[in-house]
Amino acid sequence: MATTTTVETKSSWQDIARIAQEQRDASIARVRPAVPEVPADLPLDVSGVPKDLLSSEEVEITQTAAEDLVASIASGKLSSVTVTEAFLRRAGLAQKLVNCVTELLPEQALTRAKFLDEYLTEHKKPIGPLHGLPISVKEHIGMKGLGFNAGFVAWWDRKAPDDADIIKILWNAGCVFYVRTTQPQVLMQLETSGNLYGVTVNPFNRNLTSGGSSGGEGALIGMRGSCLGIGTDIGGSIRSPAGCCGVYGLRPTSHRAPMEGLAAPMKHSEHIIPVIGPLSTSLEGVKMFMKTIIAAKPWLVDPILLPIPWKDQQDLIGKPGSKKLKVAVLWDDGVVKPHPPVTRALKEVVQKLKGVPGVEVVDWKPYKHDEAWAILASLYFADGAKESTSAIDESGEPWRPLAKFIIKENPYVKDHNVADVWYWTGKRDDYKKEYTKVWNDTATGMNANGEPEGLVDVILCPVGPGAAPLLNNAKYWGYTSQWNLLDYPALIFPVTKVDPAIDVREEGYKPRNEKDDFNYNLYDPEKYTGAPVSLQLVGRRFDDEKASEVIEALEYVKEQIGLPFAEFV
Amino acid sequence: MATTTTVETKSSWQDIARIAQEQRDASIARVRPAVPEVPADLPLDVSGVPKDLLSSEEVEITQTAAEDLVASIASGKLSSVTVTEAFLRRAGLAQKLVNCVTELLPEQALTRAKFLDEYLTEHKKPIGPLHGLPISVKEHIGMKGLGFNAGFVAWWDRKAPDDADIIKILWNAGCVFYVRTTQPQVLMQLETSGNLYGVTVNPFNRNLTSGGSSGGEGALIGMRGSCLGIGTDIGGSIRSPAGCCGVYGLRPTSHRAPMEGLAAPMKHSEHIIPVIGPLSTSLEGVKMFMKTIIAAKPWLVDPILLPIPWKDQQDLIGKPGSKKLKVAVLWDDGVVKPHPPVTRALKEVVQKLKGVPGVEVVDWKPYKHDEAWAILASLYFADGAKESTSAIDESGEPWRPLAKFIIKENPYVKDHNVADVWYWTGKRDDYKKEYTKVWNDTATGMNANGEPEGLVDVILCPVGPGAAPLLNNAKYWGYTSQWNLLDYPALIFPVTKVDPAIDVREEGYKPRNEKDDFNYNLYDPEKYTGAPVSLQLVGRRFDDEKASEVIEALEYVKEQIGLPFAEFV
Repeated sequence: MATTTTVETKSSWQDIARIAQEQRDASIARVRPAVPEVPADLPLDVSGVPKDLLSSEEVEITQTAAEDLVASIASGKLSSVTVTEAFLRRAGLAQKLVNCVTELLPEQALTRAKFLDEYLTEHKKPIGPLHGLPISVKEHIGMKGLGFNAGFVAWWDRKAPDDADIIKILWNAGCVFYVRTTQPQVLMQLETSGNLYGVTVNPFNRNLTSGGSSGGEGALIGMRGSCLGIGTDIGGSIRSPAGCCGVYGLRPTSHRAPMEGLAAPMKHSEHIIPVIGPLSTSLEGVKMFMKTIIAAKPWLVDPILLPIPWKDQQDLIGKPGSKKLKVAVLWDDGVVKPHPPVTRALKEVVQKLKGVPGVEVVDWKPYKHDEAWAILASLYFADGAKESTSAIDESGEPWRPLAKFIIKENPYVKDHNVADVWYWTGKRDDYKKEYTKVWNDTATGMNANGEPEGLVDVILCPVGPGAAPLLNNAKYWGYTSQWNLLDYPALIFPVTKVDPAIDVREEGYKPRNEKDDFNYNLYDPEKYTGAPVSLQLVGRRFDDEKASEVIEALEYVKEQIGLPFAEFV
Repeated sequence: MATTTTVETKSSWQDIARIAQEQRDASIARVRPAVPEVPADLPLDVSGVPKDLLSSEEVEITQTAAEDLVASIASGKLSSVTVTEAFLRRAGLAQKLVNCVTELLPEQALTRAKFLDEYLTEHKKPIGPLHGLPISVKEHIGMKGLGFNAGFVAWWDRKAPDDADIIKILWNAGCVFYVRTTQPQVLMQLETSGNLYGVTVNPFNRNLTSGGSSGGEGALIGMRGSCLGIGTDIGGSIRSPAGCCGVYGLRPTSHRAPMEGLAAPMKHSEHIIPVIGPLSTSLEGVKMFMKTIIAAKPWLVDPILLPIPWKDQQDLIGKPGSKKLKVAVLWDDGVVKPHPPVTRALKEVVQKLKGVPGVEVVDWKPYKHDEAWAILASLYFADGAKESTSAIDESGEPWRPLAKFIIKENPYVKDHNVADVWYWTGKRDDYKKEYTKVWNDTATGMNANGEPEGLVDVILCPVGPGAAPLLNNAKYWGYTSQWNLLDYPALIFPVTKVDPAIDVREEGYKPRNEKDDFNYNLYDPEKYTGAPVSLQLVGRRFDDEKASEVIEALEYVKEQIGLPFAEFV
């Protein structure tokens, strides 16, 4: 049974935070066998610690990819109960190591897993495509009767009135929900720092951020406390943590997966559309997630969604007679130059890609990415951040550094009137149209039907201007938010790790502007030791999965060049 | 050569209107053979007048459906020049009879038609799917270098910097642009009353409105001065004129056909999405238009559009083994009761439908249509109509009655702040989700795949609370704007005409509210004599053309019950 605690309306924010953490710890304490204690003296890289504290079967299960777990459970080789117990224990450990969990759900998860195991025995077939698979969920995605605070102390006692639509779909697909994860204050930080649970840190170097805002997911999945989880993204919130923690993460095109039933301020703002999507230890996990959501035809329930089916295997890359996969490389967005490890990762991938006969590599010339940021930053908080500010201030909780940075120190945050909103909406739509032209202009000719040929298929680019930075420094959103503005699908994948011996600081570089200067000075190879270096593959709008586009393009690339180049867990 | 007239910046609005009308008249005067004068003493119903004034070949050509003209031109049976000349003359007559034209384009149209005729001779094949077809265009749809005033006197000297995207597509498809049509002040009236050109009236009864805001198109096509034209619709602006003038008209789902390159105030408002679509003398004309636009893949140029191909013939209605077409009848929206001729048209259609084995007819229970209007009216002019108001007031032109009605006398028009906009956006999205549930709840069971069965396919309903009313009375938008809010495709088709002998006033009716009272008192059978009575077929979002949905459903219904029941032209 979950403990229930009554919160007095006049509790201080510190009281509420204490209660939140006690409830979380109590939920972990209910896991059986008990979650082991972790050593007092932890290494900087804690990603390997669970291997020493869990049984070999638990280690093996939790390090298995989602698609293989689904197959093993469906075939009866593993029970969902066994798999769920293993993940509950590893998630409990992950919490003790990187502080990424808001609560475990041991009782309801095991009841569900047991039901599913019995269902399989009785019916001789799985209940759905994700039968028995434990899935992790970012806290602000509603689960009926559970906390629904979106990281605000003032919202602590809110409970979700219903499951979010995406939870209903995953439930029908056979998932087991066993853990809910941390998010930062105001959900608008590229790290995960809040007052209810503190700071979530990076599994590979605890001085670094796990990224954000889905940083609880990133860190938990990086720790292999989950193999598949749900995040949300309006400026990089799935991709930053996926990148920082060395896992896969997809920002789908908007209006494909249902956002109904989430807690957040500015809920009905439609100036920049937030999306929901997967993070996973495997690329197949990302794909399986999206296919499951779209196969459920969520547009029949939520009219904001688009009736676009999954286009799996429409094209075939690298098959005889098929066209080449044309990859354009964005080395630098022209605003903030990436750190040496990012450029190295790009070079290593490009070098290998150039050896693949089915791939053509060209450069991508960025088009006014600084202007894109001006538009985004003007539209994110169109009410002058009044709603977000009051959700923070209501409880008296202090402003976290990066919340302060993105709201109070952001010159674009203004209390717009409707004419201002239309002005920036016009700028947004003009910019999108211009970028479309930039992409169309990559055509090298026309075919007999008057259709363009030789168009770039995907853009390969950084996830950020560096690997995961030290806490409180993730200030440059441009490498991820760019694709939110354009509403392009963007897929993160792990490539390598920072190696101070190779990734030396570039001496004598003259920064172009203040942001570039800040980023340049941030880089100290020793401080970034062991940080995952990830890259991003970006497609055109709605090309989330079409072959020669994001997911299938990466499948082909992985198969051809053997990513990642470093060992993660 | 077009005459050029320099407008002094300090001209009075009357001076500008005089120049506008002189230029229009001069464009008509350049047509050869000269457009005949019309009799001084015109009947109320002028729809038949052109038959007496044009050659029999011209009458035949202009009364031929778009699809048949395209076939005749492609086969060389008719030249595009011959067809264009006939339409130029009939459009000129239509102007003299119902005041629906802003300018004819005789020189450029005939140059174009000649080019296309020569192309066909030389290449032995048409240049595109609409080769040689003359098409009419509402003035605010940009045509490079031509007027671009959107009905505002203050915008009189604006010229379109480029062709609108939809014009480019239709040009590439082989169309001939020969006439531009009237629109009302502020584009937000269900009739066509402005200060540049005065009032456009109904071909079948000149005391009545032609509908609006695409009332120039409605009247011109009703007069057979065009067989296919382009309108726009945010609250009924394609459907009201189509319904009033007895022609077909489609409001497609949003983001299918390109809106780029139009003149209008509030251009970047996205609270309620305006759409662009066809009006035509034939259902096939509507379909041909949409197929041509979507086949051009406009989403590759305009990223706001959705990459959804045309789903022609996916399902098959009325074929052996296929399911029945389930038609739900909305007799009355629960707010304003339709006039007797509308109810009669519904009854006549329903009676015939009930005799068709492939059709099932049920009733549709309206769901809070009054609330839908509150949401729409709160979001149409979210800036308190400041932008629209200043576009009117800038020139000193007087407010037309229905512009005043929808802006100055509309209690929902408020200068919102961003929080208000989000509030109403939330109401909008909640309402859409609720209406989706209402539709889903029409299912009668589930099939083996867990999918709903027995869902309603289409809603059959009025176009408005009556046939075309006397001028200045088209005040109730609910029967059309309802589907703008929900973003459902809606197709107008002619059914019959008002017959005072049958359509007697319902005595003793107790109106439910002020709007209902106004509408009830509006009805006087004699005043509506001869007015077309049209109906509307509404599908689910994106079911614009899917068989068992709007266009194909109407094709089947027409074939089965033989619509319309009255003779039009």
